[in-house]
Amino acid sequence: MRTIDLNSDLGEGYGAWTMGDDAAMLGIVSSANVACGFHAGDPLTIRATVAQAAARGVAVGAHVSYPDRVGFGRRPMDVTSAELTADVIYQIGALQGIAQAAGMRVSYVKPHGALYNTIANDARQADAVIAAIREIDDSLVLMALAGAPILSRATDAGLATVAEAFGDRAYTPDGQLMSRREQGAVLHDADAVAARMLRLATEGVIEAVDGSTLRLSADSICVHGDSAGAVDMARRIREELVAGGVTIAPFAGAV
Amino acid sequence: MRTIDLNSDLGEGYGAWTMGDDAAMLGIVSSANVACGFHAGDPLTIRATVAQAAARGVAVGAHVSYPDRVGFGRRPMDVTSAELTADVIYQIGALQGIAQAAGMRVSYVKPHGALYNTIANDARQADAVIAAIREIDDSLVLMALAGAPILSRATDAGLATVAEAFGDRAYTPDGQLMSRREQGAVLHDADAVAARMLRLATEGVIEAVDGSTLRLSADSICVHGDSAGAVDMARRIREELVAGGVTIAPFAGAV
Amino acid sequence: MRTIDLNSDLGEGYGAWTMGDDAAMLGIVSSANVACGFHAGDPLTIRATVAQAAARGVAVGAHVSYPDRVGFGRRPMDVTSAELTADVIYQIGALQGIAQAAGMRVSYVKPHGALYNTIANDARQADAVIAAIREIDDSLVLMALAGAPILSRATDAGLATVAEAFGDRAYTPDGQLMSRREQGAVLHDADAVAARMLRLATEGVIEAVDGSTLRLSADSICVHGDSAGAVDMARRIREELVAGGVTIAPFAGAV
Amino acid sequence: MRTIDLNSDLGEGYGAWTMGDDAAMLGIVSSANVACGFHAGDPLTIRATVAQAAARGVAVGAHVSYPDRVGFGRRPMDVTSAELTADVIYQIGALQGIAQAAGMRVSYVKPHGALYNTIANDARQADAVIAAIREIDDSLVLMALAGAPILSRATDAGLATVAEAFGDRAYTPDGQLMSRREQGAVLHDADAVAARMLRLATEGVIEAVDGSTLRLSADSICVHGDSAGAVDMARRIREELVAGGVTIAPFAGAV
Repeated sequence: MRTIDLNSDLGEGYGAWTMGDDAAMLGIVSSANVACGFHAGDPLTIRATVAQAAARGVAVGAHVSYPDRVGFGRRPMDVTSAELTADVIYQIGALQGIAQAAGMRVSYVKPHGALYNTIANDARQADAVIAAIREIDDSLVLMALAGAPILSRATDAGLATVAEAFGDRAYTPDGQLMSRREQGAVLHDADAVAARMLRLATEGVIEAVDGSTLRLSADSICVHGDSAGAVDMARRIREELVAGGVTIAPFAGAV
Repeated sequence: MRTIDLNSDLGEGYGAWTMGDDAAMLGIVSSANVACGFHAGDPLTIRATVAQAAARGVAVGAHVSYPDRVGFGRRPMDVTSAELTADVIYQIGALQGIAQAAGMRVSYVKPHGALYNTIANDARQADAVIAAIREIDDSLVLMALAGAPILSRATDAGLATVAEAFGDRAYTPDGQLMSRREQGAVLHDADAVAARMLRLATEGVIEAVDGSTLRLSADSICVHGDSAGAVDMARRIREELVAGGVTIAPFAGAV
Repeated sequence: MRTIDLNSDLGEGYGAWTMGDDAAMLGIVSSANVACGFHAGDPLTIRATVAQAAARGVAVGAHVSYPDRVGFGRRPMDVTSAELTADVIYQIGALQGIAQAAGMRVSYVKPHGALYNTIANDARQADAVIAAIREIDDSLVLMALAGAPILSRATDAGLATVAEAFGDRAYTPDGQLMSRREQGAVLHDADAVAARMLRLATEGVIEAVDGSTLRLSADSICVHGDSAGAVDMARRIREELVAGGVTIAPFAGAV
Repeated sequence: MRTIDLNSDLGEGYGAWTMGDDAAMLGIVSSANVACGFHAGDPLTIRATVAQAAARGVAVGAHVSYPDRVGFGRRPMDVTSAELTADVIYQIGALQGIAQAAGMRVSYVKPHGALYNTIANDARQADAVIAAIREIDDSLVLMALAGAPILSRATDAGLATVAEAFGDRAYTPDGQLMSRREQGAVLHDADAVAARMLRLATEGVIEAVDGSTLRLSADSICVHGDSAGAVDMARRIREELVAGGVTIAPFAGAV
């Protein structure tokens, strides 16, 4: 029987501001990418999110970012490798501290936003993130975009990795995410998305934007919770997977 | 033979800004209170400080603060207990992550600035800091003002503590630090300060501002490195202690 | 015929985070207290809010705060007078720049949160805020709590002032706001609140928590928009006032 | 007789941190590029710098930056045009407020660091900065790199401009600044630099790195004050210019 992980970005409030419906999402996903304070997440918010994840048996990952709160970590920044490595270690450490206080542990690292996109292909910044993980705790798993070069770089460096697919995104025939700037890049039909994800989980294939069939190896599916519609789609994906005989659980190695 | 710890606030640069002469101070002190990012210290600066401390065999403590970078953590803030506990856990965790990456560990926690002063006497905020330390790692030692009520509160809560004296500060006859706002509160004569500290280390007494003799139990002496004069005074204190047969070393429990 | 101003805190998003329903509130109020970046409000958000206020003919005030974004400006801070004066000038200037770019002007200053509460009674901090307003533009009006000592201090210093009442708050018999920590401090019945505000606008009296009648001179009423219920209450207050023959308009001096 | 402006980056402290010797530089330069809070400069520091500039008769410019304090505005950021325009308006407005309180005015805008370099050639970000200046106050002069395309874009948009040369930088034969990453890009011989600047001021030519002579039209020379050596070089440049019959004064239009 097939097992797959569902992950989502959580703990992305900041002080008086909230974002998304964390409580709902913690009933849907098996892994929570928890903001670490650089793009979102103050200590009190992070602590509440980690406590809820612990109570629900959801694995916790460090959702590390460029230091750009006002830009929500979405703006590419040309940081040095030394800066990036230090920033990532700091964020992972901070989340580990909060997890430790909650009696659980951080299982993985998933870079956020512009950093996520940059390191998928940029070897220098990818190496800086990989170095950070190795230095603080080389048992941490790196979660990255299925098919991206960073996955093999991390493997070569001795890190365990998890490849993730995006439920609501269209893929090009060569397995890349279609740019959000293009028409049709984001999928809105929850039933169709759920069916796509079931096929991905059970057959390891996904239909590309041109109708061709693409092999995609993914151990986790990213779902969103930043709107009511997004939560509904995430729930729909979970239901379809479960109905199709797929077990939803954190990937191996995650608590 | 008597052993005493010398501690100083280090790693208090931020990005392009520097503060004090960390390299000089790491040759003088046995314990480094390392800024954790809330009043000072960006990840790259913290990392460099921790690496240097590790290389010099200097123990590392988390110099946690209110979240007030522009005010350098010197302004009292009426934070909630939940906010304070979360903020302290986050900062300790971040520093632990950086220490872990440097192959060393955080030995103690010394609150900074306005937080330090507030918790010396304010039971609510003291308890929030104590709770933070207990939750993240109850083997961490709390460093606080010799004679302050927080020391017994921490002991009662099961934490190990280190009481510290200030080399360059005058004491009232009842063992309190004289307020900086009063004339004569800060001492500037390095030789006199060094002699005071030797007497404190060897006899456990210090002369109060009125000339009376005061018993003060201190296992660490705080010295400053934020000006050339401060570094000179710190060096003079160390020399006097060593010449007087006192060993300078991290307190028991610190690496 | 009686005229009264309705004001609300707007522009309190930050980057990707939103707060309250600004669009709805701009159809209800005559004055917008616009966040200036210290407790909330990034430049893009502020700009959008000011543009909408300009389009709706709503007056704009600078909603200045302590520098405490993560605490949303709600935590008392013991800042120096020089720091506070500079912080307030900076924030007013920034908002004036954005207003200038939108072809309108800032009419008034309403301190936010903990600063608002502190300066109501604390003469030192009140004077620092008054000095800031006088130095940058002494034609700016200070909006403050009806009955608070700061109003006469500002008048004595040559500033025009506007006293405001709170629609949803209970008053003590001596005209103070009842502390939020006490039972019954916040009123939830929109009809009752609307009736109270009509009476205040037309008769200059309000019923205190003990049932006694209190004279309260207020030229503006503060309403909230941070929840759907709050927006409904604000709308209800406006409707009741208009139905009772009261004109809703910015206070004299505001555009 | 030839007149030229000398400008320098000032007010770049932040809270407890200082940078450079502002007092010395205000005795050397005719124009102060004052940090506006995004890369450096808290309100109190900015206020002190503006007051000193006013007292010395030095013109004040807004040294606007990307929002990147920890990176000191030196890291390229891919911000949207709307974000950039709003950020620049906010910063100019804040400085104008502080200048207004000091009884002086902001004369010009000089973008800082990575933003300066990016807009020299990047038309989209250049246009966003130009739009910001035009919207807040189209009498503000834009200071930019001599020879850079942004100068003509700004002129075409109706802004007055000032072209600046760098005293301590080598130029390529086609008039570009040599990249700092290349050997010889930064000049250290104060006498040679001073002679170069005198020739530039009086003849409008500068020797390129290959020995060829280059025509360069510059109305201002940028000098630095971030080290004792830099201050000495700046003073040397001023002395050489004055000895050579050049008047040091703010460019036309600046107070």
